[in-house]
Amino acid sequence: MKTAAALVIGNELLSGKIADANLVVLARTLREAGVELRRAVFVLDDVDVIAEEVRALAGAHDVLFTSGGVGPTHDDVTIEGVARAFGAPVVTSPILADLLRGHYGDRLLEGHLFMARVPEGARLVSGETVVWPVVVMQNVWILPGVPEIFLAKQPLIRAELAGESPFISFAVLTTLDEGQLKPMLDRVVEDHRDVAIGSYPRWSGAEYRTRLTFDGLLEDRVRAARDAFASSLPAGTLVGVE
Amino acid sequence: MKTAAALVIGNELLSGKIADANLVVLARTLREAGVELRRAVFVLDDVDVIAEEVRALAGAHDVLFTSGGVGPTHDDVTIEGVARAFGAPVVTSPILADLLRGHYGDRLLEGHLFMARVPEGARLVSGETVVWPVVVMQNVWILPGVPEIFLAKQPLIRAELAGESPFISFAVLTTLDEGQLKPMLDRVVEDHRDVAIGSYPRWSGAEYRTRLTFDGLLEDRVRAARDAFASSLPAGTLVGVE
Repeated sequence: MKTAAALVIGNELLSGKIADANLVVLARTLREAGVELRRAVFVLDDVDVIAEEVRALAGAHDVLFTSGGVGPTHDDVTIEGVARAFGAPVVTSPILADLLRGHYGDRLLEGHLFMARVPEGARLVSGETVVWPVVVMQNVWILPGVPEIFLAKQPLIRAELAGESPFISFAVLTTLDEGQLKPMLDRVVEDHRDVAIGSYPRWSGAEYRTRLTFDGLLEDRVRAARDAFASSLPAGTLVGVE
Repeated sequence: MKTAAALVIGNELLSGKIADANLVVLARTLREAGVELRRAVFVLDDVDVIAEEVRALAGAHDVLFTSGGVGPTHDDVTIEGVARAFGAPVVTSPILADLLRGHYGDRLLEGHLFMARVPEGARLVSGETVVWPVVVMQNVWILPGVPEIFLAKQPLIRAELAGESPFISFAVLTTLDEGQLKPMLDRVVEDHRDVAIGSYPRWSGAEYRTRLTFDGLLEDRVRAARDAFASSLPAGTLVGVE
């Protein structure tokens, strides 16, 4: 199973100016692709911190995705941070520069060309429906922070990661609270160590009190864990099975 | 200036089952309190990972806030992780056990009492409007992951951190794109190193194209940076000043 990490960059997220919308989008893309997202780190626009974190996360996971800090202004330091993590200089990509010239024409300014910078040795990944390429340095995908653009890049990630086995996910809903269902749940957890089992209390709404989730790569095992738990519930406390 | 970090715990967040809602709430609480949130780390329900991360983040920041993993089931391992980070055993808090007995009465089960576990040596922080106390181990605040409860605990954090100078935040809106405004902005950044300046392109909507933000602890300096930038813009490109 492949593993992944996310590095989400931006003062605006840690100061509460805006709420991040990208992590859950990436998490869902990776989940569907059968890749385990193990860690996400949010940092400020600080090139030293970014470089150190890229080095650590890219080294410990199969693939790292960064979000944010790729525009032309002083606070966009992700390209430099990734380059520094790999000991590479920052260079201007002729392909990206041509794309910028094509887009801006006579209105092109020196400031716009800052968006053509890449770590030396990076590759560009593009697709039929995604015009502007993603810069990928070794196992680091450098994604933009603007949510609409981040979302638009997801098909490129799906195409790159195609071929892994997807995760299977089932669920049980019950009227029991976590303290009540704990003895039954503990037995199922003990007997199904290869299934990731989660318990989530619902705070509002009356239909059910707790949602139990069962996740794994082997459908038979995931289904067996779910069914073992569902059938261990006292009569009248099972609301539904998904 | 005090610094803070956040440790957000839960398989459900990294698998994309739900989107985190707590980080932005904490970020805003800390921002209003004048505390700099420097880093947030999202991890899985893994007690070793949590213990290691608590040790690192609590050691490098004045205060650490954890979110999630505090219920009674097998996937709730935050209390154990924090205890392990400080080399403390997990014990049952008589105060929390009494609160649970008062709440559940005759319906109290052994499973419910798992919610009374704390790292030995932890203190309990409560307030007039917050009935269930927050468990605080040294400089680590252990907060629940359910968004409604996480939100309800914020007044306790505000009360604890009262007395710091709040951050001042101003903004300028312009019709220029980042490539166009970069030369003017670079000069203002150079002249105002004590002000954190951010540039955020707007992807949709026609009223303005870029929002520039100016943040710092000294209102005069923040205002001077904002005004220097606003007055450097070409005629007709300034949409507003906040």
